[in-house]
Amino acid sequence: MAVYTDVDDEELESFIADYEIGAILSCKGIAEGVENSNYLLQTERGRFILTLYEKRVAEQDLPFFLGLMEHLAAKGIPCPTPVHDRSGRALRRLCGRPAALISFLDGMWPRRVRPEHCKGVGEALARMHLAGQDFPMSRKNALSVDGWRPLLDASAPRAEEVQAGLADRLYRELDFLETGWPADLPRGICHADLFPDNVFFIGDRLSGLIDFYFACSDFFAYDLAICMNAWCFERDGSFNTTKARHMLSSYRRARPFSNAELAALPVFARGSALRFLLTRLYDWLNQPEGALVRPKDPLEYLTILQFHQGVAGPSAYGLD
Amino acid sequence: MAVYTDVDDEELESFIADYEIGAILSCKGIAEGVENSNYLLQTERGRFILTLYEKRVAEQDLPFFLGLMEHLAAKGIPCPTPVHDRSGRALRRLCGRPAALISFLDGMWPRRVRPEHCKGVGEALARMHLAGQDFPMSRKNALSVDGWRPLLDASAPRAEEVQAGLADRLYRELDFLETGWPADLPRGICHADLFPDNVFFIGDRLSGLIDFYFACSDFFAYDLAICMNAWCFERDGSFNTTKARHMLSSYRRARPFSNAELAALPVFARGSALRFLLTRLYDWLNQPEGALVRPKDPLEYLTILQFHQGVAGPSAYGLD
Repeated sequence: MAVYTDVDDEELESFIADYEIGAILSCKGIAEGVENSNYLLQTERGRFILTLYEKRVAEQDLPFFLGLMEHLAAKGIPCPTPVHDRSGRALRRLCGRPAALISFLDGMWPRRVRPEHCKGVGEALARMHLAGQDFPMSRKNALSVDGWRPLLDASAPRAEEVQAGLADRLYRELDFLETGWPADLPRGICHADLFPDNVFFIGDRLSGLIDFYFACSDFFAYDLAICMNAWCFERDGSFNTTKARHMLSSYRRARPFSNAELAALPVFARGSALRFLLTRLYDWLNQPEGALVRPKDPLEYLTILQFHQGVAGPSAYGLD
Repeated sequence: MAVYTDVDDEELESFIADYEIGAILSCKGIAEGVENSNYLLQTERGRFILTLYEKRVAEQDLPFFLGLMEHLAAKGIPCPTPVHDRSGRALRRLCGRPAALISFLDGMWPRRVRPEHCKGVGEALARMHLAGQDFPMSRKNALSVDGWRPLLDASAPRAEEVQAGLADRLYRELDFLETGWPADLPRGICHADLFPDNVFFIGDRLSGLIDFYFACSDFFAYDLAICMNAWCFERDGSFNTTKARHMLSSYRRARPFSNAELAALPVFARGSALRFLLTRLYDWLNQPEGALVRPKDPLEYLTILQFHQGVAGPSAYGLD
């Protein structure tokens, strides 16, 4: 949960007066997202999310994120759309921070993932990949294979606090991934963080994709592997082949993928497992004093990594 | 901010299905209130607050709190109203906790208090006191004069960590208050915690009183003194006579008070200052590990106490 910045009612009123959305009826800080402060704002004209970008989001990336959401929403992807003020600005400042007003999406994220959810997510991810193809901006993925060694170097000296032998295991995996990381596969705009809490459903219908603040340019199949890891493992660490089959086959129906992409899935799945393991390990070892957010368990992703290290090929993921 | 219990979407759907409020469109944990978990719920029929009562609220008090809100709302006080399910129940259970669904009130609480706000609060408090007079239940105020000595005894051994000589000063004040505490003044249902974050405004119009979870039976003028302390001191600790005059005179227009009540205001103001000083001191010295709520500064209320110790009489509060 996270509301880092308390917005003053008078500052807020003057901020909102620059938009064509009527007067404020209510504004509640919401316990969602860990990177930014988010408010649910009700005005005479509807509901909006007001986001204040805190220091973990680089200000120079915001035009990319906001531009992408606007581009995708215009193409029919159910994602938040930045609202422009009377001067046409989507990115502004409030309480000394970059801030944006964004359309509100109905729906709830699934606490217990069912195969039907995975079907919806696979299709939505494929449609998002297609819809992003003519987006004119790009952003390097700082958390792809090139970024992992510095992250591991930063955590390795204390990794034993989490598990004996962990640093060695991760260095061996990193050596493997750096050597075997695919090239020349289809790439484009990726969400790169499409976990269940970033996908809304109303009943079984997917109603929204949110939180594009890790979006970047990378391999589509890597984005799909991130999704598969996030949605297709049970809480006990076991892999649910039915969920994976639903996700991959519904993705493939919306964006057919090549044999080369399919063959790369296991290595992308290992890479995705290592990526989240490394950031969680770093956050685990570097918890700020008085933090409002409890860090996630890095070892959850070690179990996922071990599963993919053991698969014989992409057929393990339930595709025919 | 506070969301202690994460509500599962499936559990929530089954809980909400028992009400006549249509299907859920969204549900966001909100960063409001420190005692309970609160969700802003949007359904096909409107907006509601879903509250899960955490351990700081005694379960046996909930029928009083919910009954009071319903009683006051029916009398036209702008306060949340519990929604009954199809079986007529207002108090239910969700995620192993007592839970209630409550009407949503528009408005925002004022971050910077202006005299107009104090005027609205004074009138609303008086109307609430009148509206509660025929409420059939009662609840002892555990945080009135009888409850302060045990609280101070619990904190005194470590009070020096906060300020040198603090325990002695507070014991002297407590001796004074226990001896001189008024009796036989008009009493009835009090809010007992009407701080700015519990009062909503739309523009200058008061639109809601919330958070009745300290409500109890006590002296009306004591409730007014709590309000005066909460609203009429500036951040630098100075007393704003204009704000107090607005609050007291608008209260008096709605519920005329006797000379005896007026004369008791300084001692009630000292008592109210001690009451919040003592609970804040206790919370300050007993912060739970990994707490999500930052405790409030107890010494803010020492400044307020000192102001009231120095006044010659109720005329210091700006009334004619």
